[in-house]
Amino acid sequence: MSKWVYAFGGGTAEGRSEMKNLLGGKGANLAEMANLGLPVPPGFTITTEVCTYYYDHSQTYPQDLKQQVETALTQIEKIMGCKFGDVADPLLVSVRSGARASMPGMMDTVLNLGLNDQTVEGLAKRSGDARFAYDSYRRFIQMYSDVVLGVDHHHFEEILESHKEDKGYRLDTDLAADDWRTVVAAYKAKVKEELGRPFPQTVGDQLWGAVGAVFGSWMNQRAITYRRLHEIPASWGTAVNVQAMVFGNMGNDCATGVAFTRNPSTGDNEFYGEYLVNAQGEDVVAGIRTPQYLTKAARMQASAELPSMEEVMPAVFKDLDDVRRKLEQHFTDMQDLEFTVQTNKLWMLQTRTGKRTTPAALKIAVDMAREGLVSKEKAVQRIDPTGLDQLLHPTLDPKAERKVLGRGLPASPGAASGRVVFAADDAEEWAGRGEKVILVRIETSPEDIGGMHVAQGILTSRGGMTSHAAVVARGMGRPCVAGAGEIRIDYRAKTFSAHGQVVKEGDMITLDGSSGEIMQGEVPTVQPELTGDFATLMGWVDEIRTMKVRANAETPLDARTARKFGAEGIGLCRTEHMFFDPQRIVAVREMILASDEAGRRAALAKILPYQKNDFVELFEIMQGLPVTIRLLDPPLHEFLPNNEAEMEDVARAAGTDIAKLKARNSQLHESNPMLGHRGCRLGITYPEIYEMQALAIFQAAVEVSKKTGNPVTPEVMIPLVGTKMEFDLLKTVVDAAAQKVFTETGRTLDYLVGTMIELPRAALAAGRIAETAAFFSFGTNDLTQTTLGMSRDDSGPFLEVYRQKGIYEHDPFASLDQEGVGEMVSIAVERGRRTRPNLKLGICGEHGGDPASIGFCQKVGLDYVSCSPYRVPIARLAAAQAALGVHSDSTA
Amino acid sequence: MSKWVYAFGGGTAEGRSEMKNLLGGKGANLAEMANLGLPVPPGFTITTEVCTYYYDHSQTYPQDLKQQVETALTQIEKIMGCKFGDVADPLLVSVRSGARASMPGMMDTVLNLGLNDQTVEGLAKRSGDARFAYDSYRRFIQMYSDVVLGVDHHHFEEILESHKEDKGYRLDTDLAADDWRTVVAAYKAKVKEELGRPFPQTVGDQLWGAVGAVFGSWMNQRAITYRRLHEIPASWGTAVNVQAMVFGNMGNDCATGVAFTRNPSTGDNEFYGEYLVNAQGEDVVAGIRTPQYLTKAARMQASAELPSMEEVMPAVFKDLDDVRRKLEQHFTDMQDLEFTVQTNKLWMLQTRTGKRTTPAALKIAVDMAREGLVSKEKAVQRIDPTGLDQLLHPTLDPKAERKVLGRGLPASPGAASGRVVFAADDAEEWAGRGEKVILVRIETSPEDIGGMHVAQGILTSRGGMTSHAAVVARGMGRPCVAGAGEIRIDYRAKTFSAHGQVVKEGDMITLDGSSGEIMQGEVPTVQPELTGDFATLMGWVDEIRTMKVRANAETPLDARTARKFGAEGIGLCRTEHMFFDPQRIVAVREMILASDEAGRRAALAKILPYQKNDFVELFEIMQGLPVTIRLLDPPLHEFLPNNEAEMEDVARAAGTDIAKLKARNSQLHESNPMLGHRGCRLGITYPEIYEMQALAIFQAAVEVSKKTGNPVTPEVMIPLVGTKMEFDLLKTVVDAAAQKVFTETGRTLDYLVGTMIELPRAALAAGRIAETAAFFSFGTNDLTQTTLGMSRDDSGPFLEVYRQKGIYEHDPFASLDQEGVGEMVSIAVERGRRTRPNLKLGICGEHGGDPASIGFCQKVGLDYVSCSPYRVPIARLAAAQAALGVHSDSTA
Repeated sequence: MSKWVYAFGGGTAEGRSEMKNLLGGKGANLAEMANLGLPVPPGFTITTEVCTYYYDHSQTYPQDLKQQVETALTQIEKIMGCKFGDVADPLLVSVRSGARASMPGMMDTVLNLGLNDQTVEGLAKRSGDARFAYDSYRRFIQMYSDVVLGVDHHHFEEILESHKEDKGYRLDTDLAADDWRTVVAAYKAKVKEELGRPFPQTVGDQLWGAVGAVFGSWMNQRAITYRRLHEIPASWGTAVNVQAMVFGNMGNDCATGVAFTRNPSTGDNEFYGEYLVNAQGEDVVAGIRTPQYLTKAARMQASAELPSMEEVMPAVFKDLDDVRRKLEQHFTDMQDLEFTVQTNKLWMLQTRTGKRTTPAALKIAVDMAREGLVSKEKAVQRIDPTGLDQLLHPTLDPKAERKVLGRGLPASPGAASGRVVFAADDAEEWAGRGEKVILVRIETSPEDIGGMHVAQGILTSRGGMTSHAAVVARGMGRPCVAGAGEIRIDYRAKTFSAHGQVVKEGDMITLDGSSGEIMQGEVPTVQPELTGDFATLMGWVDEIRTMKVRANAETPLDARTARKFGAEGIGLCRTEHMFFDPQRIVAVREMILASDEAGRRAALAKILPYQKNDFVELFEIMQGLPVTIRLLDPPLHEFLPNNEAEMEDVARAAGTDIAKLKARNSQLHESNPMLGHRGCRLGITYPEIYEMQALAIFQAAVEVSKKTGNPVTPEVMIPLVGTKMEFDLLKTVVDAAAQKVFTETGRTLDYLVGTMIELPRAALAAGRIAETAAFFSFGTNDLTQTTLGMSRDDSGPFLEVYRQKGIYEHDPFASLDQEGVGEMVSIAVERGRRTRPNLKLGICGEHGGDPASIGFCQKVGLDYVSCSPYRVPIARLAAAQAALGVHSDSTA
Repeated sequence: MSKWVYAFGGGTAEGRSEMKNLLGGKGANLAEMANLGLPVPPGFTITTEVCTYYYDHSQTYPQDLKQQVETALTQIEKIMGCKFGDVADPLLVSVRSGARASMPGMMDTVLNLGLNDQTVEGLAKRSGDARFAYDSYRRFIQMYSDVVLGVDHHHFEEILESHKEDKGYRLDTDLAADDWRTVVAAYKAKVKEELGRPFPQTVGDQLWGAVGAVFGSWMNQRAITYRRLHEIPASWGTAVNVQAMVFGNMGNDCATGVAFTRNPSTGDNEFYGEYLVNAQGEDVVAGIRTPQYLTKAARMQASAELPSMEEVMPAVFKDLDDVRRKLEQHFTDMQDLEFTVQTNKLWMLQTRTGKRTTPAALKIAVDMAREGLVSKEKAVQRIDPTGLDQLLHPTLDPKAERKVLGRGLPASPGAASGRVVFAADDAEEWAGRGEKVILVRIETSPEDIGGMHVAQGILTSRGGMTSHAAVVARGMGRPCVAGAGEIRIDYRAKTFSAHGQVVKEGDMITLDGSSGEIMQGEVPTVQPELTGDFATLMGWVDEIRTMKVRANAETPLDARTARKFGAEGIGLCRTEHMFFDPQRIVAVREMILASDEAGRRAALAKILPYQKNDFVELFEIMQGLPVTIRLLDPPLHEFLPNNEAEMEDVARAAGTDIAKLKARNSQLHESNPMLGHRGCRLGITYPEIYEMQALAIFQAAVEVSKKTGNPVTPEVMIPLVGTKMEFDLLKTVVDAAAQKVFTETGRTLDYLVGTMIELPRAALAAGRIAETAAFFSFGTNDLTQTTLGMSRDDSGPFLEVYRQKGIYEHDPFASLDQEGVGEMVSIAVERGRRTRPNLKLGICGEHGGDPASIGFCQKVGLDYVSCSPYRVPIARLAAAQAALGVHSDSTA
């Protein structure tokens, strides 16, 4: 015989807190509290397996369930000393849902079950309070009718309102016992009118009706939507908890409340909560009466008048405070409690891990580790890495007033204010004269990099979380609101409008990249604190993790930010970003327009000194930490202008005519530039470009080594390799450049030549490529595009549908598609390491900053992850959790 | 001690014909002829391993080589009864290269070696012909000086010319013995003048000089280039053949000649060749004297005056004819022979497999199989599949005059004439009124399909062998000359010009898609014969092969062509091609412009009847053979017009305004359409499109089944699947449509739902996808694009450099990249079959018609290949060869 029902109460329980899958969160914790000897009203849990059975068997129950429920009910009766349906002294019960994962408010609850026309009289007599008894009865009828019978609650509210009007009452508390009797009669009449049958008077029928309703609510639309959003499988099912009612509304020696064992906003180790005298739980939630503070200290601090529970019922408060301590000790985490006091006796109705803000999570974890309550490892596991993001950027002063113009996607966190400009060039010009600017574009392209860099924040009206603007902004740590479809940009008029409000060039606005809000004027911000608990926890993180964390950085500012956030090197320096600098873009374009190698070499010679200085600065900032430099990657047409006016400028500057420029532009045009003439294909066809870059790298490395006395070990990375031969041909170019510099300077230094693995073919050929490549860095952005055959820029329109239909759980460009792209990575790791056991392995795509993907990287054995500077702390934490074998799901 | 030298002659040999890798082709066959007892002048072969040693050891020889050469030389002396360097009766030798693969004319040869100022006198006495002796000496000096000493031959030609002028001679034959003596003296003086040292008189030095020169010639520029073009590894090396000289120029009882055991042009079983009396081999090649026919029959047929060898020296001819028979019997293939007759004795100098035309190859193979000389299998193995292509299309009448305007790539074989038009619409209009047209475009796009279809041939000025025009034309069997950079097209003037010549709209031109020639006017063509030897051989092919061959076809014409060429079904019916039809493109665009599902459904309802009729026709033509129909694949923007004028037309026709059309166009714009919103992604986001197509398929299948009484089994194919769930969601749509049709018509039929494997992710997920997919068809065009991260349309500019540098041996879009894409296919096959052992597997990319790729398909166990209709015979042959385990290299 299967066990479908688990009893608890009377100082013991059949369940335990570990049995959440079977008993649901609420049921498991009720059992655990009972086991701990805490005062839990007795009850029982019908398991989630019954729910599964119910849906697998056309909504019927297992045969032996009825018997098990009756046995458990009898046990409650025994403990409570009263009987379910007993006319003289009736046992009342609550029936509540309780799933494995918390689904607050999503499913239904019935209280005061067991009341009927007879038992209500028994309750009145036993409690000596007819008003209480009939109030409970009418609450029960309303709740049960709504939840189980499908009679909408507005019917009952109308009856109550009209009774109050008739009598001239203002508040519910004005109604006396007889009033409630009248209301109850009207309620019952209404039920009969609506359903054609009377309100059920048999308490057994009431119970099974409520149980069925709870199971039924698992498949209501709200619950289905909630599960989809929170990725909870329908197959988990819900449990049903049936528990003896206790009453906080039987007089002034009764109360009900909710509490957190520590402050959930700040994390301070103080008892925090609210209570109401003579009230039922729903009254606290409904917000009709103002709840009172739990502790005197809190009341004093808030200068509140109503007395605290500590003052009103000190003995019960002491009991509650003892329970608080016991539960924290037992669960070793901050708890969220519900309790009821019935005639000066404390009853615990629920305990669960309390939700908290990120700063509170940090403080609680660090404090508990210091208190010895949890280990450092446990403390590290407690923090949701993605939550850290909000600590690393300036935030809006919570006290400041905001005038919200519109909203977009929260594409890159942080808050910033500045004057609106509509072109990257304008941004650079305005910034050049000391103005703070916000760059507003329909969408951004690589040409806008310079402008994005000098801007305080970026706002686009098109594009998603992985659009160019979003990705680049996150990389730079600039706040960004992307895809704000509510705003309409008019480039010609240099204005944007949002909900009828027009913002002109030069107007001050503020962006909150964490919420997606666009605000008028300058809203004050608060700078982040990277000390205290944050620093302590990150110290532990660094002790635990085994993977290194590097940053994707190419500017001095990025590199400094990366170091500030604890990066242990640069994992991806994208040299092409250096080409867009206005001082050199002319020479770059000259190179592209050159008709032969000699012409290209002449132009490259002009770029070389700039490129060398870029590397000198980076090497100096990184002080001997590894720097991985990717040689030129994008197709050449990205460096040419697209519009007529700019083309004329360029033609003039390059001393060529616009016809030639247009011809070259159209010659370079590609139908699928992602799959075109880029990456190492540029190096193979124009080796002189890579040669120039390699010379710049080694000249810079030698110069910095000389100056600082510390050796610099450049890691030169060849992009988009598909075959060993491509790599070998280009390694020869790099090696020759190194030798040339070493011969000229009389100094040698160590360096590595490796490759990005970003094509499926490269993953398959990894064993051969590793014969000559010293390291692999997984370029999972491109590897995702090729493995899935899906362009990041173009997938927006269908990827949203894909996620709704559950084809991909996450955006595969944000979190690694472990099944597909992940297998490609695994194949490459396995084959590469078989050839070269000490092959250095890293990841440098957007995924390098995503906790779930970092967990995968640990699992397949990468040496490091590399991510945007602002995500370095997140990656460090995620790497530590990965080392501890935690999946990256939030524990908060 | 290694064996470096292999002797032959005197009725025996140390080598065999199987030892080609060691002895080279010539050496191995000389040994084989000696073993067969044929009259081969004795000699020896220095192995290819010596060549390898030579280049591995700074151009030095193995220590024991000298001794082995001396021993072998002594053996020649013994057989010939004369001595190398002997003043009275000198042995002369030839020194020739001989590599594993034939490299005609690429390396050097020295004849008459062993002559010096003394031995020439001995030769004069022994032969009784001083003129012959000194003529031989001067030939030797000239050849040796040129090849070994590096004294250019023009020096010697000048001396000879000036001597002839002095003496008033016209022909070389006018020179007497003393003349040659004078010339020899002048030659030697010239050598001394040029080199500062005399011409070598020691015969041993002469020999080693010549051997070194042959090994040296392996690395000359011509040979390196030839090897690169023919993919011969440098590591193979060449052998050196040293052989006793025999002389065809010692009088009128001497002769020299070349022969084929069968006619190499027609394949007729007749002795075919030429000879010259009293001549050395080089005289035949030089073409100074007119060679005479070998047989009387040939002489008679050509009405030639000079007598045939059969008539002049019947006994020797009989010997030669015996040799011919023996060699064919022994090598069981048509042979290409060289022989010399010295004083009425026949000497065989070379035999090798003879080159032949494709019709000859076919005839010889079929005849030999009928004669019992080879098996049917061997006959099938003998034919180069790609060569078949020229037999399947009309060809230019070889006798017709041609006026060539210019040249492009031979992109799709066959010849055709027609009037020039410059737009697809014009092509349709002109063809509609009965004109034959040639469509001339800078490049073509899917919008041009209709025009391409009605055109006799297609000419483009841009794009390569895998451009849209080339691929589509091959698919349709239309002749196509692509990428003709020599011509300049002016759409506005409706003209094109080539080398100053202007061709106007309406002018007649002729294209030869097999040679790439563009000709003025109408050049007569000859229709192909698919009967006779071709039909016989294809019959054997079909008995042998195990893979089925299907065609990629969507029009009735294509389907009929496919059947004519022996296709066993349709492997890929691209439904989108049906959407471009002018009658329905309006409805298609209406569907795309619709703002909601209802609008789309209304437009789709208009397309449904057309689509159904398409399938009715196809099913009828295919008479129960399997038809695989791919649901809509390309992104929707491909169906919208690009230019302003057309957009206005469409807006008017669709009853919408141009602004809306432009907005939709720009909304649908994609940066990488290959990786965009296409394939099953359309089906996921707009299931109603696939639903319409599925309804059309099943309605048509039921209708044709009813009409013909034969069951139709449609195979519905979902494109661009990456995950099992995509496939499952769309299979549900297809199944529902099938049920709907079955219910409505009261008839059911079998059908399969399967998918294309064209993304790396799909290959990896093949095991899961096969749980519900009944078949896989490898779309290796897209699979190549994604696995290599390389766009077919954009790879031209760098792929040529890649092939030059040897990164890819073949264009990976023409011949499957077996190492990379091939492994993807293998993974999918292995995983798919593990789940579903009877999973039906095919290929439907361009590679399905490429012999090398077909060999791969056999190896991994595919059930069928599918290719353009015109490639079906090629694929059938290649499949048979694959079944026999032949690699697809040409045997001709």
